[in-house]
Amino acid sequence: MGMIVDFENDQNDAVLVPPPNFAMVEDCVFRSSFPTPSNFPFLQTLNLRSIIYLCPEPYPEGNLEFLRSQNIRLFQFGIEGKTDVSIPVLKDSIMDALKVLIDVRNHPILVHCKRGKHRTGCLVGCLRKLQNWCLSSVFEEYQRFAGAKSRTTDLTFIEMFDVLSLSQCLYSIIYQYHGSKKRRLLYKDENLQKPRLTSF
Amino acid sequence: MGMIVDFENDQNDAVLVPPPNFAMVEDCVFRSSFPTPSNFPFLQTLNLRSIIYLCPEPYPEGNLEFLRSQNIRLFQFGIEGKTDVSIPVLKDSIMDALKVLIDVRNHPILVHCKRGKHRTGCLVGCLRKLQNWCLSSVFEEYQRFAGAKSRTTDLTFIEMFDVLSLSQCLYSIIYQYHGSKKRRLLYKDENLQKPRLTSF
Repeated sequence: MGMIVDFENDQNDAVLVPPPNFAMVEDCVFRSSFPTPSNFPFLQTLNLRSIIYLCPEPYPEGNLEFLRSQNIRLFQFGIEGKTDVSIPVLKDSIMDALKVLIDVRNHPILVHCKRGKHRTGCLVGCLRKLQNWCLSSVFEEYQRFAGAKSRTTDLTFIEMFDVLSLSQCLYSIIYQYHGSKKRRLLYKDENLQKPRLTSF
Repeated sequence: MGMIVDFENDQNDAVLVPPPNFAMVEDCVFRSSFPTPSNFPFLQTLNLRSIIYLCPEPYPEGNLEFLRSQNIRLFQFGIEGKTDVSIPVLKDSIMDALKVLIDVRNHPILVHCKRGKHRTGCLVGCLRKLQNWCLSSVFEEYQRFAGAKSRTTDLTFIEMFDVLSLSQCLYSIIYQYHGSKKRRLLYKDENLQKPRLTSF
């Protein structure tokens, strides 16, 4: 798997337009704002298998048609865009979205909300905690995308999110190899560990 | 190859500290500010084969020691950090750095300068042009990392950079496969095409 650098632009002469706030998060994990039809040729280059959509509004028919044509599965977790969203509800949605996000069977995967700032930023922030990133680096990444629209409520949510509680409901083990070093993406069986209280 | 999500933190209990402005650019291509020893445990998780360093100052001994211990090769292209850097000199350095950057034999690879804003932003911006990204998306990504320090001279440099001139001096063909779709990273032999004048 390599990046696309195609000097022989037969049918690929068209300039590609990534959605605003597009970025690669990890191998086969991408983030962005809401894609419009102008972004579809670019999205095709990602060979997506799934999309996580974090808004409650129905997915536009044009986007659904694109997903059908590309055989991309849509996972929708309807999180309100307002700042006064209930923390327990947000926590449940982010938890469910995280389970889909880290499951390599859904990769390559794109996460998006409307602007790719707050809801997407919260999900990626929680993923970074799962990856053991220090909080200041998690916040720096959140703010790079949120810019002037950074929300303290999001940062607090990410800080309080208890990644250990995720392990209660994961169910299988997937080993990942990269080069000579073994990387693992481990899903603990929910019966393997005693459920514990989370920080929420 | 998958992202690192390790629930079984035997020796990996330590919180990881990515360098400021760290991000994944493409499969096996990363960018950041200057890494310090506190970032070494995080960098180890990337299994780097190479680093592109874009400053003229000598690499610190502690960093060189880390590179030796991890068998990471250093490619240095000394670009001055000032804004009045000569455009032809900058163009040559960026061109040489791009050749190293897109060569999959050097991957996984990290690009960094001092703050991961201007010199790194120029190199990544030129890579995006090579990938056929529209200019507004290239600029948006540049500005996400440069923030308030965004420089018009950098944006103009990226805009004027002629990616076709790169094909004059590339020399081999590497085919890349991803899933069922073929992606190619094509290096044209410099004798295959007549050299052409660049936009500089």
